[in-house]
Amino acid sequence: MVPLPIMASSSKTIRRLEVVSPVPADIDIANSVQPLPISEIAESLNLSPKYYDLYGKYKAKVLLSVLDELQGSEDGYYVVVGGITPTPLGEGKSTTTVGLCQALGAFLDKKVFTCLRQPSQGPTFGIKGGAAGGGYSQVIPMDEFNLHLTGDIHAITAANNLLAAAIDTRIFHESSQSDKALFNRLCPPNKEGKRTFADVMHRRLKKLGISKTSPEELTTDEIKRFARLDIDPQSITWRRVMDVNDRFLRKITIGQGPEEKGMFRETGFDISVASEIMAVLALTTSLGDMRERLGNMVIGNSKAGEPITADDLGVGGALTVLMKDAINPTLMQTLEGTPVLVHAGPFANIAHGNSSIVADKIALKLVGKNGFVVTEAGFGADIGTEKFMNIKCRYSGLVPQCAVIVATIRALKMHGGGPEVVAGKPLDKAYISENVALVEAGCVNLAKHIENTKGYGVSVVVAINKFATDSDAEMNVVREAALRAGAFDAVVCTHHAHGGKGAVDLGIAVQRACESQSQPLKFLYPLDISIKEKIEAIAKSYGASGVEFSEEAEKQIELYTKQGFSGLPICMAKTQYSFSHIPSLKGAPTGFTIPIRDVRASIGAGFIYPLVGTMSTMPGLPTRPCFFDIDVDIATGKVMGLS
Amino acid sequence: MVPLPIMASSSKTIRRLEVVSPVPADIDIANSVQPLPISEIAESLNLSPKYYDLYGKYKAKVLLSVLDELQGSEDGYYVVVGGITPTPLGEGKSTTTVGLCQALGAFLDKKVFTCLRQPSQGPTFGIKGGAAGGGYSQVIPMDEFNLHLTGDIHAITAANNLLAAAIDTRIFHESSQSDKALFNRLCPPNKEGKRTFADVMHRRLKKLGISKTSPEELTTDEIKRFARLDIDPQSITWRRVMDVNDRFLRKITIGQGPEEKGMFRETGFDISVASEIMAVLALTTSLGDMRERLGNMVIGNSKAGEPITADDLGVGGALTVLMKDAINPTLMQTLEGTPVLVHAGPFANIAHGNSSIVADKIALKLVGKNGFVVTEAGFGADIGTEKFMNIKCRYSGLVPQCAVIVATIRALKMHGGGPEVVAGKPLDKAYISENVALVEAGCVNLAKHIENTKGYGVSVVVAINKFATDSDAEMNVVREAALRAGAFDAVVCTHHAHGGKGAVDLGIAVQRACESQSQPLKFLYPLDISIKEKIEAIAKSYGASGVEFSEEAEKQIELYTKQGFSGLPICMAKTQYSFSHIPSLKGAPTGFTIPIRDVRASIGAGFIYPLVGTMSTMPGLPTRPCFFDIDVDIATGKVMGLS
Repeated sequence: MVPLPIMASSSKTIRRLEVVSPVPADIDIANSVQPLPISEIAESLNLSPKYYDLYGKYKAKVLLSVLDELQGSEDGYYVVVGGITPTPLGEGKSTTTVGLCQALGAFLDKKVFTCLRQPSQGPTFGIKGGAAGGGYSQVIPMDEFNLHLTGDIHAITAANNLLAAAIDTRIFHESSQSDKALFNRLCPPNKEGKRTFADVMHRRLKKLGISKTSPEELTTDEIKRFARLDIDPQSITWRRVMDVNDRFLRKITIGQGPEEKGMFRETGFDISVASEIMAVLALTTSLGDMRERLGNMVIGNSKAGEPITADDLGVGGALTVLMKDAINPTLMQTLEGTPVLVHAGPFANIAHGNSSIVADKIALKLVGKNGFVVTEAGFGADIGTEKFMNIKCRYSGLVPQCAVIVATIRALKMHGGGPEVVAGKPLDKAYISENVALVEAGCVNLAKHIENTKGYGVSVVVAINKFATDSDAEMNVVREAALRAGAFDAVVCTHHAHGGKGAVDLGIAVQRACESQSQPLKFLYPLDISIKEKIEAIAKSYGASGVEFSEEAEKQIELYTKQGFSGLPICMAKTQYSFSHIPSLKGAPTGFTIPIRDVRASIGAGFIYPLVGTMSTMPGLPTRPCFFDIDVDIATGKVMGLS
Repeated sequence: MVPLPIMASSSKTIRRLEVVSPVPADIDIANSVQPLPISEIAESLNLSPKYYDLYGKYKAKVLLSVLDELQGSEDGYYVVVGGITPTPLGEGKSTTTVGLCQALGAFLDKKVFTCLRQPSQGPTFGIKGGAAGGGYSQVIPMDEFNLHLTGDIHAITAANNLLAAAIDTRIFHESSQSDKALFNRLCPPNKEGKRTFADVMHRRLKKLGISKTSPEELTTDEIKRFARLDIDPQSITWRRVMDVNDRFLRKITIGQGPEEKGMFRETGFDISVASEIMAVLALTTSLGDMRERLGNMVIGNSKAGEPITADDLGVGGALTVLMKDAINPTLMQTLEGTPVLVHAGPFANIAHGNSSIVADKIALKLVGKNGFVVTEAGFGADIGTEKFMNIKCRYSGLVPQCAVIVATIRALKMHGGGPEVVAGKPLDKAYISENVALVEAGCVNLAKHIENTKGYGVSVVVAINKFATDSDAEMNVVREAALRAGAFDAVVCTHHAHGGKGAVDLGIAVQRACESQSQPLKFLYPLDISIKEKIEAIAKSYGASGVEFSEEAEKQIELYTKQGFSGLPICMAKTQYSFSHIPSLKGAPTGFTIPIRDVRASIGAGFIYPLVGTMSTMPGLPTRPCFFDIDVDIATGKVMGLS
């Protein structure tokens, strides 16, 4: 293979890094680089100021209206980055995503855009620290990336909790009022003494099959059906959210104040990124589409088993108002001055774990023909890439040309039978000294991910994210195994230590893969089969021999099918630590039966999510959280101690 | 009195309104005016782009660093707007504040700045609607003012709840670990195997009188004292917050998940603006000062009765990081193009209800000598202006020249014995037809507010906020009563119907009042008397003959005194609907005894707050909340239905 020449970049925003060894702390690298004014990044993209709003000097929200302007332009190449089944330490997927883009933009003179998820602020103060990449492959300013950003998650929190308040308040007010009184309050007379429906009420009327336009025309029965939602408190699946690791809110009892008259109820808080509204943001395609999805979110059932939506509660419009700026992705930059769009960060287990469709669409237009958009899919490829293809691409209509699979020698050794890897504990020496046999044995995991990913019709490039302790022999084994499994290429990269320069080979491989690819996207399952069949198709892709549905799961599948939701794609809520449901089953297990404990639905976002085991949706804080180290330098205003 | 001439404004940003009668809905007026790019407003203030960050096209955060730049400049005149004891409908204090500034800036050619509180988003979707002024005296864009703004309240919510999570998690981890284990986790060995203290830990060590610098040096007893906070769960006063009207969170039980091992606890949520962090934001004077205040916030006591602070929990620095952008006030504009700073919005009952010190300071420098800064104090002058003087000005060192008291004929009639005014119900005809006698009788309330406000050494100007149904005879009575009570002037204004033009006489009066004023600020009480004496001094200013302390209040006063907090100013938590503690006691009652039910403290913000009766810190939603009318126009992206 003749390598493409490494070109000097023609973009004015590109900056060269002076790398130091050993690699300094992430925050120190981030603070050592003066970011460019984001308006200069926008200019390098030919993005006119009328299509973005500045949020401080280094962030801007790109307005969706730019899509209308660029409607006729061609898209760039679309690359998704997934990973092998990870260790609890993570294998550097974000870092590789950023490093690959730095290589393409700063060394291979390509138009390139990185599309990343916005991290939750909770873990930033807990155990995990930030999520802006690492080493010499980072998004900057790193503190702004990790904290508040442009307020999207705060908007989600506000919207999620307004809906929650609307639910309990509605039940409360319905409990003490007659149908007539309720109706009269919902449709009060205006100044002329005439009752009218609010616009949002027409949605409920339509759902009920009532075509009348004036409140005065409703019959007593219609008044009852319209005004009384009759929500079954036991059926409420809508929980409150907070962007804080607050384990004491996992299970709580609300409504214990004397004014709430004994209407207490057990519920709980999730972390904000687990909100369905986050999944809506990630999957929506326009403001109008978001309005519909938010209004369609189902919060539970009436006592008669009818799904109750946000629009039934009258709050779909208000939720859209709260989210109207959040729909615009945030423009930032990498350490080497290439552009980044940060947008949405849905949970990768109970949601689909991919950044937003609108960010990818905007990016594809802005890089244009022969440009590259690299977007990351959460967790291992069995979860992240699968949901990227079957949910995200299905809704967006976009077709990727290339999928990168990030592998580390460390994780492959674990899959080959190495000792357990535990976050916070020192690594076993198997992981920091050469052990070719372990690596070789672990490649079954990589091979299975390659095989599955190739099934979508894309070219697969394996990125071997090299650590200082990895040996050439180990890496050769991986490269050979990857090619044997059908990868288009497998490349060692050192972007953590060297920035884009360390990922130039990867960039070249990705470019070749994209250029040689022209297959349509092949989904793993069609939408028009049953919920069970879809779950079975996904389980089979894991290597399972079958699926076992609990009684609860059977009941919910029946309910959702009856309610007309069986045509939605499936979003499996499964551990990322194994192809199977058992985290300790490493490698590429087969013959196991996937148990479906329960089945839930995010109707607004647009998927059914079966629960394989218990998913924590609210992390906790350790005895000594990260926050002990975090402070502001009073003199400079700089953030210290963020990792 | 010879009126000053009405001049055409020399500022380029001033725009003339074409007013329509009857006055259209607030949102329609707001949407009918195209705001100027906020950079033009900044330019009109000679504010260089290096001193502000844009947040979209019509908002900018003004950086505190501008104060260093303007250190040598002279301040403008400082005007506070208070009100008489209001009806539940409000008497147009915000509207008058905005209208006065539009008059000064757009018609009297003065440099002027309006300083307003940021409204809570909760009520925007509940009953009250927005808070951007009204009619032709508004801040625009009105939807951005009422929703999210630049994220300050969201930052407060995040910081408040991080501290809450830190409290419960710390109790949880302390419960299962020995002193030694706890200490080892708090001070883990670094890569070289050496234990070190995090910077924040030195604050706790200092508080404990331990001067050692290395964890290795601590004795067993010191380890115990340092590592075990031993928080008494019963003593925790720190509650979680949310910027949503969610009554079902007023009283809740947390920690009911199986992983929390039975450590459940009763607590509750307040609305975010009731957070002590909001009060800190409003009273802080610099980033360094905010760091200290946030770290000093007391969340409860140890079982031995020692106050436990955010810095004891190790989280003061992280809270500051979350709040570091929130400290910068937000620049906006009025309908007539005059500049506005929106910043902080502390509850006016359990906190001091005034916008921020830093916003006022920046504004005073930017308008400079002979310019005007008009700032609003929440509720009636007995609460808002009293706290403005005794808490806000005491901490800022700023001296106002003039206090405006807003009065309406409607409220004066109520004080004169008119029937009850209830929000949402039609007004009694006494309020919409002439009744000079009722007005005359009600002027005792105005007179008492004038007398109290004059006591601070400022000139008092009464603004009679005219409604269409008010008669000349009624207004003459008010004017005479005001002058008799010692007001510098009393002026009728119609800024709601006419914008700044309707407040030109008020502007002239305020200008004269400021120019003729040179007294120092006289506080109502010194800080070095006892908590009880301070409370008594304030009660006396209400007209009370005495104060009655409950057993609980006595106990808390004793505790705070013992803990060394008795030197703080007092922030009375009292109804705004009467000078007394009884909302139905209108006019200027005397001879009553103020009951102090309990006494609490916001040590970080810097005040003690006695509770006079029960204060709701979490509003609810009605059967038909405002949100039914709120939606986005999908085609234009404009917000509809906001009131």
